[in-house]
Amino acid sequence: MNYQSILDSIQKEISSFKNTGKVATYIPELGKVDAHKFGLHLQCVTGEHFALGDAEERFSIQSISKVISLSYALKLAGNSIWQRVDVEPSGDPFNSLVQLEYEKGIPRNPFINAGALVITDILMGHLKKPKEDFLHYVRDIANDQTITYDESVAASEMKHKFRNASLANLMKDFGNLQHNVDDVLDFYFHQCAIAMSCKQLSEAFTIFLNYPKGDHSKQARTLEPILAKRINALMLTCGFYDESGEFAFRVGLPGKSGVGGGIVALHPKQYCIAVWSPPLNAKGNSELGMKVLELFTSRTGISVF
Amino acid sequence: MNYQSILDSIQKEISSFKNTGKVATYIPELGKVDAHKFGLHLQCVTGEHFALGDAEERFSIQSISKVISLSYALKLAGNSIWQRVDVEPSGDPFNSLVQLEYEKGIPRNPFINAGALVITDILMGHLKKPKEDFLHYVRDIANDQTITYDESVAASEMKHKFRNASLANLMKDFGNLQHNVDDVLDFYFHQCAIAMSCKQLSEAFTIFLNYPKGDHSKQARTLEPILAKRINALMLTCGFYDESGEFAFRVGLPGKSGVGGGIVALHPKQYCIAVWSPPLNAKGNSELGMKVLELFTSRTGISVF
Amino acid sequence: MNYQSILDSIQKEISSFKNTGKVATYIPELGKVDAHKFGLHLQCVTGEHFALGDAEERFSIQSISKVISLSYALKLAGNSIWQRVDVEPSGDPFNSLVQLEYEKGIPRNPFINAGALVITDILMGHLKKPKEDFLHYVRDIANDQTITYDESVAASEMKHKFRNASLANLMKDFGNLQHNVDDVLDFYFHQCAIAMSCKQLSEAFTIFLNYPKGDHSKQARTLEPILAKRINALMLTCGFYDESGEFAFRVGLPGKSGVGGGIVALHPKQYCIAVWSPPLNAKGNSELGMKVLELFTSRTGISVF
Amino acid sequence: MNYQSILDSIQKEISSFKNTGKVATYIPELGKVDAHKFGLHLQCVTGEHFALGDAEERFSIQSISKVISLSYALKLAGNSIWQRVDVEPSGDPFNSLVQLEYEKGIPRNPFINAGALVITDILMGHLKKPKEDFLHYVRDIANDQTITYDESVAASEMKHKFRNASLANLMKDFGNLQHNVDDVLDFYFHQCAIAMSCKQLSEAFTIFLNYPKGDHSKQARTLEPILAKRINALMLTCGFYDESGEFAFRVGLPGKSGVGGGIVALHPKQYCIAVWSPPLNAKGNSELGMKVLELFTSRTGISVF
Repeated sequence: MNYQSILDSIQKEISSFKNTGKVATYIPELGKVDAHKFGLHLQCVTGEHFALGDAEERFSIQSISKVISLSYALKLAGNSIWQRVDVEPSGDPFNSLVQLEYEKGIPRNPFINAGALVITDILMGHLKKPKEDFLHYVRDIANDQTITYDESVAASEMKHKFRNASLANLMKDFGNLQHNVDDVLDFYFHQCAIAMSCKQLSEAFTIFLNYPKGDHSKQARTLEPILAKRINALMLTCGFYDESGEFAFRVGLPGKSGVGGGIVALHPKQYCIAVWSPPLNAKGNSELGMKVLELFTSRTGISVF
Repeated sequence: MNYQSILDSIQKEISSFKNTGKVATYIPELGKVDAHKFGLHLQCVTGEHFALGDAEERFSIQSISKVISLSYALKLAGNSIWQRVDVEPSGDPFNSLVQLEYEKGIPRNPFINAGALVITDILMGHLKKPKEDFLHYVRDIANDQTITYDESVAASEMKHKFRNASLANLMKDFGNLQHNVDDVLDFYFHQCAIAMSCKQLSEAFTIFLNYPKGDHSKQARTLEPILAKRINALMLTCGFYDESGEFAFRVGLPGKSGVGGGIVALHPKQYCIAVWSPPLNAKGNSELGMKVLELFTSRTGISVF
Repeated sequence: MNYQSILDSIQKEISSFKNTGKVATYIPELGKVDAHKFGLHLQCVTGEHFALGDAEERFSIQSISKVISLSYALKLAGNSIWQRVDVEPSGDPFNSLVQLEYEKGIPRNPFINAGALVITDILMGHLKKPKEDFLHYVRDIANDQTITYDESVAASEMKHKFRNASLANLMKDFGNLQHNVDDVLDFYFHQCAIAMSCKQLSEAFTIFLNYPKGDHSKQARTLEPILAKRINALMLTCGFYDESGEFAFRVGLPGKSGVGGGIVALHPKQYCIAVWSPPLNAKGNSELGMKVLELFTSRTGISVF
Repeated sequence: MNYQSILDSIQKEISSFKNTGKVATYIPELGKVDAHKFGLHLQCVTGEHFALGDAEERFSIQSISKVISLSYALKLAGNSIWQRVDVEPSGDPFNSLVQLEYEKGIPRNPFINAGALVITDILMGHLKKPKEDFLHYVRDIANDQTITYDESVAASEMKHKFRNASLANLMKDFGNLQHNVDDVLDFYFHQCAIAMSCKQLSEAFTIFLNYPKGDHSKQARTLEPILAKRINALMLTCGFYDESGEFAFRVGLPGKSGVGGGIVALHPKQYCIAVWSPPLNAKGNSELGMKVLELFTSRTGISVF
């Protein structure tokens, strides 16, 4: 597959793309980003890699961190985590309390905020220094020791914590949160506030690729195939809030978006691709990011379907 | 891949499986089936095929017909159908009115009952003799002219039509149904009442395999890759009512179940597999069928993830 | 109490009232009414009565009929009816399916459409000729043999039956409707299609006044005090769709509205008052009607609170 | 009316009442109460008063405080409060988040927890020392300077604050709470933790009686008739969680219950009656308390209906 020429053709096509999306502003720090930033990085199992635009500029990964947290919790706690969080699409916006109340404090899946708060609570039960340990894990899977938290973003999230505090308190009331609510929120907001580039994200997500056992250096950091399969399934069914069906339909890859404008997607055994464009569509996903990934799977003719 | 030995090992394992499911009885005709029936048919793109148990015995395909109806509607009406039905998981039971009311008569996806009723209404706008034409389409893609409606099942569905009549009238009220409610229900119940075997189903669903263009005899009946991709994405995200996430998680294939106890699943470019065991779990999917498919993708080590 | 001077002052005040409401048009027949019509009739237990404007012009009573149907069902079937319909405010619009689904086909109260359909079904179980018998009951309590159905309104309702058909089919599915759906709808739509004037309505509703036993001619038609108390309680908590709290708050009387623009309210042991002005506010209640009744209880200084 | 003989007959009848209710235990302090306690106090506008059982023993008034808080907020802030809280029955349990989310942080009425939290927030904007000032108001209307907070109950509520903290944070997120969440909760829990007897409650609630102007000593503390009318309407439509319709139906008086087992009800211009029995029915209202009040209005033959 000649990825370079496909990427070139995509770059050409999107040069005239009229973005109707809006940069997230629910916390001021996110609103400061340049709306015209665009980056893409493709990392293949063969070792080949390709880049477009601002591929090495770091941005707030936000909800993309939920996949990393889930993989870490599965490594540490195994399948016991599924007693506290379900694996079904929610059919509701990412921060909905309605479903959580009807379903007695068990979040629908680990990629809605409520689910990620439970995963955070689980991690806290297994880590001595949660924030430090988590950062080490991220650096390890991304193979880059410079990755760090953006503390001003984390602080801003804490200042506007009310919706997430409502979710966390509701789960606490149902007995599905063991630690102090503010401690859980602080750790959760730090996860969201990690700054990474498309290059770093596409490297980190190779742990979900299920690729052959030859590559020993990487092997150590790779998830067991059965865990990677499950996380990929969750990304495909639940990775894009209440637009997950649309993404599966148009792009056809497991993936995860964040309100910082990033999207990571992957084709098991083949490649990871990360794209970044801050303006979000009405459902909270990067408008241009989704367009680019749709073009990519259409032109390669390869998706999981 | 030595499919035969994998299937043999599965058959051995399930011989001691304790089924806790229950045969559907909401219409008396479905309740008459022998709960111990079990069949499986695997149809590979290579032409190889494998069978277990009652693979050639016909049963009521019920909601599996929704995939066939969707493929026919897409062939006839193209992407215009998405103005009348969405592509998102519902997060609610298959016959829920709640979501339909909140979302003004636009069903969440074509695989919940409301969505299938809209697809039925669309087909009626394109077919001269809907029931006859639809049967010809099914016979054509399954390459078997003996397939037919089970009229006693269709009549029984009509006698217990009230929940579906409620859905249909609600959509009619919202303006999302063009034909007479009872005519739509009659055609819809006939689609559900088609009787097919695992062998016939696994053959019919090869139209979604996106396989290479060499096989000219089959080619004529195969869907365009872009349509197959979309239907596969929908099966993966919405094919198992509110257990779709669980199926993706455990099995990892696009598929569709029916309350007659059948499940069809497929791996694009590789194979279709149909399995049949009448007792259903609490979510309405064949308990043993899901177990068998989970064993199959675990032992082959191949899923779309 | 000098009712005449109070009514005169109200008429003066509303002469400059700017109505922002809209005449109901969901069936064409209702839309034909003159939006400027206004009538009021006050019937006191003393026998005194007072009128304003078009007090003797007949209009479609619509949902006001639900109170009459309930009183008739209570007379015929007694408290057994409460096994099939509850007595709580719904907190949702009058034709909502959501609550009905969550609550397994038991309507919240007899004054939402679903509840009135159940009451209709109950009446059918006790009446030989439902439509004739019901009309006799209405004529009897209103003491006026000229009252009749507006068949063109009933026919128009039937033609646009879909939302109510959805409700009825859902209850049928839950086993809370014994008769044929279309027969229930036909009888229900006839009840709604009764044409009465403010004068006739204020006379009919005196059966709920619980007034002293001296008046023997009327006594025969009056409800037992315990039944009248219950119906009055229901009118106060549930009589104005999801604006019942507002009506209790501003007017402070038991009452019932209809989309034809009529409202009947009453003060137990004192008077009935009926008012008619077709334009409806956003919640479906007569805008001017509510205003007039608020002025009336404010100026008399008398409400049940 | 010979109230004494009616009360005697009620006491006799309930001596054999088999209580199936359960004492509230969601906070340990409430669970410590003796389930067999029973008190009743009737305070008439004439000055007459009557008592049964433990009429002077103090208990935790809990949600009964919501009516007192509302009256105080109306005195201080007038009708501006209705911009932040609605006046409709909720149709959902008293602590439901669902409706609050759908309705953008505006609680349905001041008697569900969310609404009372908003009222608390409003009071904080008008009071220099909220807890002290509120206590003075209660002592003033009850004409008893010994009334005080039960600090152990307030502390226990704070320790189990999570459901209310979830509500408060959600409203904070919607912008409908101006003060610090924990400060609002602390003040709110103190209101709930006031300890009063039936005698004190029936005295305090005379401010809602709208009685003649002759009694000058009391007059100073009495609410304006227009405010009393509105609060009475709210008690009738919303005073008993999702059993408000049932209470209106069986008892027919404005009233308010608390999970401490108390109920206060009143007949405008005639009397206040307070009753206390700790075991609650499934909807959270005193089972015996409702029974006694139903007997009372049935045997006197007087209710607002």
